[in-house]
Amino acid sequence: MARVSQEHLDARRRQILDGAARCFARNGFHATSMQDVLKEVDLSAGAVYRYFSGKDELIAAIVTEVLGGIREAFEEAARQSPPPPPDVLVGRVMTQVLGLGGGGKLGLSWDGEASFPRLMIQVWTETLRDGELSQVLRTGFATVRAAWVKVVEGYQEAGLMRADIPADHVARTMIATAQGFAAQQALFGSAPVGVIQDGLRGLMSMEPPR
Amino acid sequence: MARVSQEHLDARRRQILDGAARCFARNGFHATSMQDVLKEVDLSAGAVYRYFSGKDELIAAIVTEVLGGIREAFEEAARQSPPPPPDVLVGRVMTQVLGLGGGGKLGLSWDGEASFPRLMIQVWTETLRDGELSQVLRTGFATVRAAWVKVVEGYQEAGLMRADIPADHVARTMIATAQGFAAQQALFGSAPVGVIQDGLRGLMSMEPPR
Repeated sequence: MARVSQEHLDARRRQILDGAARCFARNGFHATSMQDVLKEVDLSAGAVYRYFSGKDELIAAIVTEVLGGIREAFEEAARQSPPPPPDVLVGRVMTQVLGLGGGGKLGLSWDGEASFPRLMIQVWTETLRDGELSQVLRTGFATVRAAWVKVVEGYQEAGLMRADIPADHVARTMIATAQGFAAQQALFGSAPVGVIQDGLRGLMSMEPPR
Repeated sequence: MARVSQEHLDARRRQILDGAARCFARNGFHATSMQDVLKEVDLSAGAVYRYFSGKDELIAAIVTEVLGGIREAFEEAARQSPPPPPDVLVGRVMTQVLGLGGGGKLGLSWDGEASFPRLMIQVWTETLRDGELSQVLRTGFATVRAAWVKVVEGYQEAGLMRADIPADHVARTMIATAQGFAAQQALFGSAPVGVIQDGLRGLMSMEPPR
């Protein structure tokens, strides 16, 4: 009995988060009211407020979930020895995050492929004024960064990458590439993940400075 | 006489743009009024409105100027044969854009090093609802992208990079890396440009996939 009930609670929570994400991606945080979210998920205020106290909690929950999904993908990759090369790994995580893979582990069913990037840049702007959200993002960034550091150390231990470069600097750069590519999709429309994979392969084919 | 007058007009325009940029970076677009800008630059409404019709025009002018500076830096680099490697080039442009170089060609004197990134992510969010600004950004992106394509073709012609990868995909990836690194500074505080330069060198030291 308790198990079924928990499943029901989880499904309801999922439904609310998915609906809120669609609203936010479509109209932005500021133009979306809790009324809009209620309408989108077709639930009563009582049903929704049982899970989330308001917009800020919804936003934080969505951000936490996305970051958790990214971290998981990297931690899984870091367990392989050597880890998959950057072009494969970035392609895999971006496909998952952009929801192009269909379904996807994140469980957030976005309204088309450009929704995640649009949501992402709004979250970034929101952190400039929202200390709590900023903290959520900092924590998430730190864990994704730590997961990438393990991957880079895997490259270095396998002799695939210069070992005299701080793994954390490579980690930050790889994250930057993915962030920037997602931002481009928000600004200029969707692009195949193969674009960034090609770009990484091009870079990897260059000779490092002597 | 005409020359002096033009210099005066340019200096006044510069003063207004710098002041507006400081206001926007500090408080965001929405929380900044034209009154705030007038106060910041210590000019009358008549003096300011002679140059800019309002906030939207100020924002567009700042964005155009920043993008122009980035494009110039790349076009200069593309004239070298072969062009400087990505770590050098990205380092040079980011140093200039972040204003860490002191003064800098852009002429925008930001309020400390984190101001440009904070402004950048706000501009991105703003484009989701502002079609004109979105167009300014699209045009700017297209020219920076074209400039980077020339650089990448320079690498490929000099045999420094695999020639079977579309130059445009490498161009988009390099821009993404710089965009993402700037976003990280807005979100998590400033970081030395050496971080991203190290990261690019690490990637370049890897073997490309067979």
